[in-house]
Amino acid sequence: MVRAVKKTQTYTRIVDAGLALFNELGERNVSTNHIAQHLGISPGNLYYHFANKEEIIVQIFKRYSSELLAYLTDAELPASVKEAVGYLGGVYDIMWKYRFLFNDINSLMLRSAEFLVEHNQFTGERVSPLLIELLTRMQNAGILEIDDTGKHDLSVNMWLVTKYWFDFDRSMIGQGSYGSDIIPRGIRRTLSLVRPYLKEPHLQEFDEMMHGIPML
Amino acid sequence: MVRAVKKTQTYTRIVDAGLALFNELGERNVSTNHIAQHLGISPGNLYYHFANKEEIIVQIFKRYSSELLAYLTDAELPASVKEAVGYLGGVYDIMWKYRFLFNDINSLMLRSAEFLVEHNQFTGERVSPLLIELLTRMQNAGILEIDDTGKHDLSVNMWLVTKYWFDFDRSMIGQGSYGSDIIPRGIRRTLSLVRPYLKEPHLQEFDEMMHGIPML
Repeated sequence: MVRAVKKTQTYTRIVDAGLALFNELGERNVSTNHIAQHLGISPGNLYYHFANKEEIIVQIFKRYSSELLAYLTDAELPASVKEAVGYLGGVYDIMWKYRFLFNDINSLMLRSAEFLVEHNQFTGERVSPLLIELLTRMQNAGILEIDDTGKHDLSVNMWLVTKYWFDFDRSMIGQGSYGSDIIPRGIRRTLSLVRPYLKEPHLQEFDEMMHGIPML
Repeated sequence: MVRAVKKTQTYTRIVDAGLALFNELGERNVSTNHIAQHLGISPGNLYYHFANKEEIIVQIFKRYSSELLAYLTDAELPASVKEAVGYLGGVYDIMWKYRFLFNDINSLMLRSAEFLVEHNQFTGERVSPLLIELLTRMQNAGILEIDDTGKHDLSVNMWLVTKYWFDFDRSMIGQGSYGSDIIPRGIRRTLSLVRPYLKEPHLQEFDEMMHGIPML
């Protein structure tokens, strides 16, 4: 990410600490004072860099979205079902790193107009075209049998299911099991949307790969 | 719903007013005092019936879930694509009536253990088997070509997409357009999951029906 003003070390440390604490304790339960205390800096020093907690969240979201975009842009596009599982796993790993964003994303957006704008631009303008391109490649490679409506549907539904996965899995399985094993379940759930479009022998390969991962 | 203690008229009016105000203003922005004031009763009178706002929300959720279950149980199961659209429309109409529940469902559940238990029982034990039965009927009627894995996937994915639809649509389109036209877009989105399993001529019929409803 290019910024005119070079970020200070303290600025970066505040974003780092915010992310760690939001993930661990829940964003609602962490104040700017907690973050300052955690870093051993004064609240005044924190306020010198960030006027409020929302500004920290916006910076974390920018970090998340640039990391995800870099991954989607740079990672080799999958040419097989196995590679598709690995590719999606990379997406889920990044989301897991920023998981608090997906716990209460609606309430975050209601509080921050800037966050809402960032978020809409990111999903609408950046992620969807990349997904369409990926699906077209898999179609051209003979992995998928799909029409244009199907591709558009998948580009929306895959994003929707992935975005809400952490929330949904937790609501079904309960708070206790909110561990990183949520990731393979999420990969299976997202790719279940692609499964009806898979041509043989890719369908069989997919089912063999998913064998043993709980369906939910 | 059968209850040992007959509900008083005030009790019912409190639940009614809570639902109307939560939908209109957002649950976070409505206190028990607002509800009492809206009804022209004293806070003490409200507290005689409900110890806190969470208890009102649990009652609203019980009303929603019994209404939805009654609909799913009593409505004639669809025997065509057109009937499936109408059937799902009935589900979305009920959800719209209780839409605040789907705006911030995760934070509601985090606050209320009782709500979490109610909600998990409802979705896991009640809704999924009904969906599997519905899909099996459509399979037997020659509308769907689908295997058991596909049916299970649909029973999870249709619920996930429908549950988060209000939140997702709003995050993509923006706050301004949170009107009831969210319902046809939601019907299209949920049924897009079924589309790859549709056999001809049902697929063509489906695409003709969805023509004109924005994809998102």
